[in-house]
Amino acid sequence: MNYQEEALRRHHDWHGKFEITARAPLANKDDLSTAYTPGVAEPCRRIHANRELVFEYTRRWNLVAVVTDGSAVLGLGNIGPDAAYPVMEGKAILFKSFGDVDGFPICLATQDVDKIVETVCMIAPTFGGINLEDISAPRCFAVEERLVAALDIPVFHDDQHGTAVVTLAAMFNALRLTGAALGALRIVINGSGAAGIAIAKLLHLLGARQIVLVDSKGIVQRDRTDLNAMKRAMLASTNPNHLHGDLATALRGAHVFIGVSVANLVSPEMVRSMAANPMIFAMANPDPEILPEVARAAGARIVGTGRSDFPNQINNVLGFPGIFRGALDVRARRITDAMKVAAARALAACVPDNALREEFILPSPLDRTVAPAVAAAVAAAARKEGVARA
Amino acid sequence: MNYQEEALRRHHDWHGKFEITARAPLANKDDLSTAYTPGVAEPCRRIHANRELVFEYTRRWNLVAVVTDGSAVLGLGNIGPDAAYPVMEGKAILFKSFGDVDGFPICLATQDVDKIVETVCMIAPTFGGINLEDISAPRCFAVEERLVAALDIPVFHDDQHGTAVVTLAAMFNALRLTGAALGALRIVINGSGAAGIAIAKLLHLLGARQIVLVDSKGIVQRDRTDLNAMKRAMLASTNPNHLHGDLATALRGAHVFIGVSVANLVSPEMVRSMAANPMIFAMANPDPEILPEVARAAGARIVGTGRSDFPNQINNVLGFPGIFRGALDVRARRITDAMKVAAARALAACVPDNALREEFILPSPLDRTVAPAVAAAVAAAARKEGVARA
Repeated sequence: MNYQEEALRRHHDWHGKFEITARAPLANKDDLSTAYTPGVAEPCRRIHANRELVFEYTRRWNLVAVVTDGSAVLGLGNIGPDAAYPVMEGKAILFKSFGDVDGFPICLATQDVDKIVETVCMIAPTFGGINLEDISAPRCFAVEERLVAALDIPVFHDDQHGTAVVTLAAMFNALRLTGAALGALRIVINGSGAAGIAIAKLLHLLGARQIVLVDSKGIVQRDRTDLNAMKRAMLASTNPNHLHGDLATALRGAHVFIGVSVANLVSPEMVRSMAANPMIFAMANPDPEILPEVARAAGARIVGTGRSDFPNQINNVLGFPGIFRGALDVRARRITDAMKVAAARALAACVPDNALREEFILPSPLDRTVAPAVAAAVAAAARKEGVARA
Repeated sequence: MNYQEEALRRHHDWHGKFEITARAPLANKDDLSTAYTPGVAEPCRRIHANRELVFEYTRRWNLVAVVTDGSAVLGLGNIGPDAAYPVMEGKAILFKSFGDVDGFPICLATQDVDKIVETVCMIAPTFGGINLEDISAPRCFAVEERLVAALDIPVFHDDQHGTAVVTLAAMFNALRLTGAALGALRIVINGSGAAGIAIAKLLHLLGARQIVLVDSKGIVQRDRTDLNAMKRAMLASTNPNHLHGDLATALRGAHVFIGVSVANLVSPEMVRSMAANPMIFAMANPDPEILPEVARAAGARIVGTGRSDFPNQINNVLGFPGIFRGALDVRARRITDAMKVAAARALAACVPDNALREEFILPSPLDRTVAPAVAAAVAAAARKEGVARA
């Protein structure tokens, strides 16, 4: 039985990867009249008098909707909300297992931006936070921006910011190892969708000044007439030298390759054309833009991928459980850039100096100490930012 | 500490009456790559090829949204979605505890009928069924009707049909005890909102021909100009003798009083004005329309209330867990009248002949044998009706 068949068999046996469990007993009449009528009327009355108390007397404080329209699922593309469901369930239990966050899948019967935004606003009183998932670019930018403006609970598109936070942590530790300064590095990001754009924004915020975005048509540059609004807006902070051409052109002399695109786009020749000892973060799933052993043979010093069977797995599970745990703990109104950077620094710090090496720049995705450390840093940053309500 | 303070303290300690629990392990790399990427892609692909498989490979098959707009909560009225949350959580855990159904609260940020309908349609791919809760009449009728038409999963407004099913079961057993025939009884229903209307419809369907509806303005009759569309439509099947007047007028000579209204509306004199040995189902919460001992002293033979501290508790928890369990088990497209009647008959049959007496016409709400019996009857009826998909 290959691993696909095994995964299918296990999904069939689970018949759902999560369930609802009662935290209140219902064994006798007293239980029934405390958890339900007539006793339940009292917390209702208190919340009616002060709406914020819903975070005290119900589960809202710990519930995060994992919302998708199924338009950009893993490497599978626009497979729709039903087919996206197993991924959302997986995310929900990762939330619980690593962050003690109650993640709940919400699969939407629409891919219309207005309807997505309206629906999420309508169900928002149920949740303490909204995790957007697998919504295609550039629609995801509008959905997130409008929800952040409309709601006073954290809204976080994990494909953007979760990926950016974990990538940034990998960069931080690569800089720790090499002693390089972010501002001096030429960075090529291949893939200009949700993840690529968010990574570029965060790196620029932290002082990177020579970022070049590349998409399937080549380098993102001002003479192109096929750029969407977001890519065009990114020209203000990327490609300062107005490079034209393809990925190979972009990589010539670059120090860092960040791939959030598709398999096998980077050849050994391209790596050899980069600056000495380049860093390669080839995160395409399931197969990276270049295999680690190939990249290293061509001169790469530090190589990370999205895969668990290679060193330096850059996996979102290192980010979102702790980020939401921290945001929920202080009832943050939103997740700011400073909170994301704090998360990345805390994640990087999970690798102590005496463990840090080229093949170990990120902790294991199974490391249960990561989420609490990230959560504490995010909560502290939220307080500092003035977005904490508790 | 009184019971309100105790309920408040316990709600505070629970900090939510439910939580999300993982059914799939996440202990090692193999778990992670089976429940999440890359293994999860395989069930996604299968569902993409055949959407119905979402009921095999995810939890959708067992999930019921407990949806409210907070417009008619318990005896508290229009307290809004936040304050309604503790009730929805209570309902969710009753679903789980009695029916092994995964109930999940959805508190909506709107009380607009169009928006409620649209929002529920948008999130419907997440759920195997929709339980509408505490939505005020007459809006609840339009919301339910439109959702039933739009969706191919069961949509059930419990305040209507749950109450009607359990009341009907009480009536069935009262008829078993007294030997009376439904068609010969004069029945007065006080309260013409969600519950009263649904009870009247179900009783009429089963052959009751002398039903009089009463609301806060008096008997529902054709000369009134203040009736909403639903009450007006009910004139076709109620009040055949065109009675005018108040509740006292309606009760004169009646055999059955069904109260889904407010406390203390029925006096001993009114009971004495009814036919000999009347049945009184006084379900106002928390205080009934007339206290059982008062009703009995005035001549009532069978008395039921909504209260757990009196005999014959007419409680919805005897209905909805089994009704949804049965509907989900056969993946019913909807819940038909025949399924509701089957549920009522099965519930009534849970009281065997040798146990049936005037003070025991319904099983205890804590009786765990009820929901499976109701579920089996509902599933069988769904198959007979041709609405079962599994």
